[in-house]
Amino acid sequence: MNERKIIKDLFAKLATNLGSLNLDDDAAFLTADINKDFIITQDTLISDVHFHHNDSPYTIAKKAIRVNLSDLIAKGATPYVYFLSIGIPKNIDMHWLELFTSGLKDDQEKYAISLLGGDTVFSPNDIHITINMVGKITKNTMVKRSGAKEQDALFVTGYIGDSAMGLSILDDASLASNLKTSSKDYLIDKYYLPDPPINMIKGINNFATSSMDISDGLLGDIKLLIKSSSVSAKINLRKIPFSHPANEYIDNNPVLFEKAINAGDDYQVLFTLPANKIKELKSYCYSNNVMITQIGSIIKTIGDNELCDEFDKTIIDSKGRFKHF
Amino acid sequence: MNERKIIKDLFAKLATNLGSLNLDDDAAFLTADINKDFIITQDTLISDVHFHHNDSPYTIAKKAIRVNLSDLIAKGATPYVYFLSIGIPKNIDMHWLELFTSGLKDDQEKYAISLLGGDTVFSPNDIHITINMVGKITKNTMVKRSGAKEQDALFVTGYIGDSAMGLSILDDASLASNLKTSSKDYLIDKYYLPDPPINMIKGINNFATSSMDISDGLLGDIKLLIKSSSVSAKINLRKIPFSHPANEYIDNNPVLFEKAINAGDDYQVLFTLPANKIKELKSYCYSNNVMITQIGSIIKTIGDNELCDEFDKTIIDSKGRFKHF
Repeated sequence: MNERKIIKDLFAKLATNLGSLNLDDDAAFLTADINKDFIITQDTLISDVHFHHNDSPYTIAKKAIRVNLSDLIAKGATPYVYFLSIGIPKNIDMHWLELFTSGLKDDQEKYAISLLGGDTVFSPNDIHITINMVGKITKNTMVKRSGAKEQDALFVTGYIGDSAMGLSILDDASLASNLKTSSKDYLIDKYYLPDPPINMIKGINNFATSSMDISDGLLGDIKLLIKSSSVSAKINLRKIPFSHPANEYIDNNPVLFEKAINAGDDYQVLFTLPANKIKELKSYCYSNNVMITQIGSIIKTIGDNELCDEFDKTIIDSKGRFKHF
Repeated sequence: MNERKIIKDLFAKLATNLGSLNLDDDAAFLTADINKDFIITQDTLISDVHFHHNDSPYTIAKKAIRVNLSDLIAKGATPYVYFLSIGIPKNIDMHWLELFTSGLKDDQEKYAISLLGGDTVFSPNDIHITINMVGKITKNTMVKRSGAKEQDALFVTGYIGDSAMGLSILDDASLASNLKTSSKDYLIDKYYLPDPPINMIKGINNFATSSMDISDGLLGDIKLLIKSSSVSAKINLRKIPFSHPANEYIDNNPVLFEKAINAGDDYQVLFTLPANKIKELKSYCYSNNVMITQIGSIIKTIGDNELCDEFDKTIIDSKGRFKHF
């Protein structure tokens, strides 16, 4: 197995004529569009940190694409092209790489993106995958974390905690002994493969005053957003949307509620918008089949970007720890 | 040590206001310039593959920057911004990261580039560093590998083989027992830290019909360039430019000549131009203090993109192996 063979036989088939030069040059080119900015994000996944080295290469590839997609969606940008660097240990064979390429290919079609360049190298121990993804957006319209305003409504897309609950089942199956098999499978699937809300891009772009993807746990990410925006937030913990399987699992193990709202890997979007735009937002989301839930609202900060619950009790203390009810 | 602290205390100081949002958002933005294309390259370095894990972090950082720079220079593009993903094993401490950051900072100043985004993650075993570097170029003027024409002259910048000779000394010091200490130090330094010809950018852009960086060994890279251009090349092996220390070392160990022209890590530029432009090229290089050497010329291919010497003997056989004299 050598680098050039992997590129020629596998990755070159993922490249289009948008400037990749068939992955056969020193660099790729990206032609600018006068009315657009490029929005760029870069995320790395490493074996036995972000996935298990025995996981399906087909799914690992899709996860690597999707953790970058959620960043672009949260900025209101349309995904366009990506760069892939992969470090390959000795025990990875062509079959593994074929399955990996097939995962990339299927997600390229699903999300209308293509490979523009990258690097393929040998790695002594770990598999690592760095994707640098480029999106496009109308000039000067990127939605930042820092734009939340007092009295804005605070929303999330999709369900929270599915991935964390899936991982918890993989870590300790005994907690899930009462859970329906279909519920277990659903949660474990969500851990392996996030499903970022691709139809929400225009919604974020049109309505959101601030936005970020939820990758490090809902509460911590709300804290980052309100800090960035110099505001505080009041949320209703009972409004946080759980899927039916997650609800069932948490009902059986109430201690997991805290994990569901603090653990990461949701890859949904957290965003704010003026309260008078909620009706239009809901109409957009209905038409585009995006699930959204208002979980709270933005309030004036007293000094420490407080995150409090519906009874005005602080949810995260000054050291960033979740405070029990 | 946590990711956010490393970003806030170290990497955020490398970011400018060109769209990095102080590394404090989900993505960065890149504002397009109507007259320019972006040229983008991505290279990964991994510990104990591309550098030794005990090497100086200050030098590793610079090497990671420079292996990307040579790609942009070879395309005629001016370096602009970069993304950095770093995977950090447990044994790396803040001091290591401070030195690493300081290497990035010094090269940012030297080359007028800045950090736009990236990712910082834990890695179980290997240090790995992926840089995605963005350059700018006048629209539709990127110099490709594929443009070499019959009768073009074939040039290289700088010296060939210094890095390979430095590595050979590190691998087996006995070969260098007769070599002056200053020569040894020079060659070893060149192995640790390439010095891509940054002043050559406009020269490539103005004169070259084809170009690529020399990273996998001169002869193999010539072979790639002529294949891409559907031509053949005739080179004069005696014209390949060696530094004084490399010459001294090869004189002592003639067997190393073959390694010097076939091993990698030169990070110089190989390019072609019409013979009637040589005078102008030389004047440009003289004014801009860039060393260049004509090592051959492009000839019509008979069928297999032959690379032959000044006596019309084939230098690389059909299996890609160097043929001895």
